[in-house]
Amino acid sequence: METEYHSTNLNEKLSLFSEHWSPKIVAQMNDYHFKVAKVEGEFIWHDHPETDEVFVVLKGQLKIQFRDGSVSLREGEMFVVPRGMEHKPVAEQECHILLVEPVGTINTGQVVDERTAPQDVWI
Amino acid sequence: METEYHSTNLNEKLSLFSEHWSPKIVAQMNDYHFKVAKVEGEFIWHDHPETDEVFVVLKGQLKIQFRDGSVSLREGEMFVVPRGMEHKPVAEQECHILLVEPVGTINTGQVVDERTAPQDVWI
Repeated sequence: METEYHSTNLNEKLSLFSEHWSPKIVAQMNDYHFKVAKVEGEFIWHDHPETDEVFVVLKGQLKIQFRDGSVSLREGEMFVVPRGMEHKPVAEQECHILLVEPVGTINTGQVVDERTAPQDVWI
Repeated sequence: METEYHSTNLNEKLSLFSEHWSPKIVAQMNDYHFKVAKVEGEFIWHDHPETDEVFVVLKGQLKIQFRDGSVSLREGEMFVVPRGMEHKPVAEQECHILLVEPVGTINTGQVVDERTAPQDVWI
């Protein structure tokens, strides 16, 4: 008997929620999570001292500000924020992103505030 | 003075080469590589005993066969092949994919044949 395996459709996952800045886990590879998020407006300055962080834009545009510059990402573009580098993501309009980072990475890094999202939320 | 940071455009990277089954590294996150590849036809049966492997379809369709079933991926869909699981990717027509796997992962796993691509090729 054939086993049925299922792909993960990123847009389908994104259609299941509407809140901003609240990444949802869609897949795990070794000890890394793949997460989708909807973002709009300005996030907070933060960094992840222990890990790089991957941003891939699936829809819209994202700007990631650094203390000494910035990078702009359009659909189909990615950027790796190096570990320990302070950054602030900003999206003028709603933007859909894919994040790749180690299991347990907190969205606000070492800062804990009202933007700190619950961890380990699968969708 | 502002530092200029540059995004990685996946389609732009894919436009730079035409050969099939020869993944090119486009980014590194910690000890993982993000690679783009063009695939068409049948690959070989292989597995990666030490690591999971992520496939994301950027264009076209990919089927991944397993010994006991298969999964079909369309554009915007992903799948994590578990470590140690024998698999054979197949694309009826040219398909563009993004792979995520540890630095040094060999495309043919434990098999070495004419499909074994050079490692560590950045584009």
